[in-house]
Amino acid sequence: MRVIDTVTELRAALDAERAAGRAVGLVPTMGALHEGHLSLVRRAVAECDVVCATVFVNPLQFGPHEDFDAYPRDLDTDAALAAGAGAALLFAPLTAEMFPAEPCTTVHVAGVSEGMEGASRPGHFDGVATIVTKLFAIAGPCRAYFGEKDFQQLAVVRQLVRDLSLPVDVVGCPTVRDVDGLALSSRNAYLTAEQRQSALVLHRALCAGAAAVAAGETDPATVAELMASIVAAEPEVQLDYAEAVDPRTLRRPAALDGEVRLLVAARVGTTRLIDNLGARTPGAAPNHDHHHPEQGATVPAARTDHQESH
Amino acid sequence: MRVIDTVTELRAALDAERAAGRAVGLVPTMGALHEGHLSLVRRAVAECDVVCATVFVNPLQFGPHEDFDAYPRDLDTDAALAAGAGAALLFAPLTAEMFPAEPCTTVHVAGVSEGMEGASRPGHFDGVATIVTKLFAIAGPCRAYFGEKDFQQLAVVRQLVRDLSLPVDVVGCPTVRDVDGLALSSRNAYLTAEQRQSALVLHRALCAGAAAVAAGETDPATVAELMASIVAAEPEVQLDYAEAVDPRTLRRPAALDGEVRLLVAARVGTTRLIDNLGARTPGAAPNHDHHHPEQGATVPAARTDHQESH
Repeated sequence: MRVIDTVTELRAALDAERAAGRAVGLVPTMGALHEGHLSLVRRAVAECDVVCATVFVNPLQFGPHEDFDAYPRDLDTDAALAAGAGAALLFAPLTAEMFPAEPCTTVHVAGVSEGMEGASRPGHFDGVATIVTKLFAIAGPCRAYFGEKDFQQLAVVRQLVRDLSLPVDVVGCPTVRDVDGLALSSRNAYLTAEQRQSALVLHRALCAGAAAVAAGETDPATVAELMASIVAAEPEVQLDYAEAVDPRTLRRPAALDGEVRLLVAARVGTTRLIDNLGARTPGAAPNHDHHHPEQGATVPAARTDHQESH
Repeated sequence: MRVIDTVTELRAALDAERAAGRAVGLVPTMGALHEGHLSLVRRAVAECDVVCATVFVNPLQFGPHEDFDAYPRDLDTDAALAAGAGAALLFAPLTAEMFPAEPCTTVHVAGVSEGMEGASRPGHFDGVATIVTKLFAIAGPCRAYFGEKDFQQLAVVRQLVRDLSLPVDVVGCPTVRDVDGLALSSRNAYLTAEQRQSALVLHRALCAGAAAVAAGETDPATVAELMASIVAAEPEVQLDYAEAVDPRTLRRPAALDGEVRLLVAARVGTTRLIDNLGARTPGAAPNHDHHHPEQGATVPAARTDHQESH
């Protein structure tokens, strides 16, 4: 695997691949790679001719009181993991390479960025949209892989690609979970053993919400309150939000009908965690649209929501 | 010349050109082509292997009370003119092709977009930055030609290309003027013969400002007031702003030193016109940076600021 740290080199390398007729897969990450990221790399390897993972802790998407400085960084380990999963290239630029001068340009996505993470983390999705637009501009035409773990982020990325006609196919991939249900996250590293145990309540709440939807509950507020009450019963965990929304608009509909997305965010100690799960009202046809993984994508040695729901 | 009206076709056509090793030149316009636009096409033809002009009256950059509906549209004439100037492709999409759904994404450029046009036309540069980012994403790697007539717009485009690492070389080209000094503009079509005569005061004011700078006036406020007073003497003309700024930051410096840009905006009847001119303090070395045209670029049968200043 070739590690590249300049914009010029990455552009030249991927242009050469495309010129040779090879399809490029891109896996943008902030590093601290875990099995969730590696499932994206493996999926990209299965579907593309050459895969580039990127590691860049994007300062634009952290708020002033968030964990930018503390965010885990270990490029050597990340490089070994990405190579092991089949990436041919790793783009790991310094901040000074990405931002030689203070940037003045912001990409803002209205609609799907509002509410939930957008409400809790002002400016977060502007930072995400801006860096993703920039990474796409550097990488050029490609398929880009994002985890459903950051479901609202995935919606923001899909929206900006559509609106700006970026030459990118966005592929959403299922959340990878530990065997006990905890969604993999680089921020899990902040948790003590006890906190980790408490954090399982997020997935429990989502499963209870999904079960209620499957059993016929169509009021999104009732489903949200059910999930909130389950999280509230865990003393170490401070709920931020629990929501039941339309997976396309990320808005709470008047009544749940068909595909539903359940999302929760909570603080466990000082660590903020998010999770989400798909649900379906009774009688709704299974959704085989582009939000869902294809049969070919498997993640060895880890449960995914895909495997759960089939 | 081939006229293309879909995003998919344009992308395929320009990808094929690049795959064949041909350099692409792009000339984004809102149509109503005049000698100024054609000078951009000719410059692009001289510097690139294949030139694509685009004609799209971008709704995003018009304010609610501006002239979007009245803006002149004549695709047949535009196509004939672009072909005559050497364009191989003309991209002229319908609004529904560019925006099949209400777009939610906005590209905002802080700094150079503030003040002057940014202050007078709220949202205008967001609309420009958004459509230019989208056109660049559709066109792919290219050299893109913009007129210095819209000097602040050119600065906005340069800034967003830098910040978002877009694979585009932005080329600024000198303003083309009629023999009496009036800068060519599609909006000149709105002027009566008398108003056209009154409008000459913009260029006169700029020339007086440049002469004052060349003669040693270093106070930007004094130069701005001089230009404002000349415009104010013309009864049919309502000044919007007159400014003397640093051409890189578009801010008024404490004292003029070296390269200076003079800009004016005014309403002539109901028609809003803008113009600008480069100036230089005494003893400053001529600026041969990328803001200035190269010797090879000539515009037949029309004066350009380039020719004036040499």
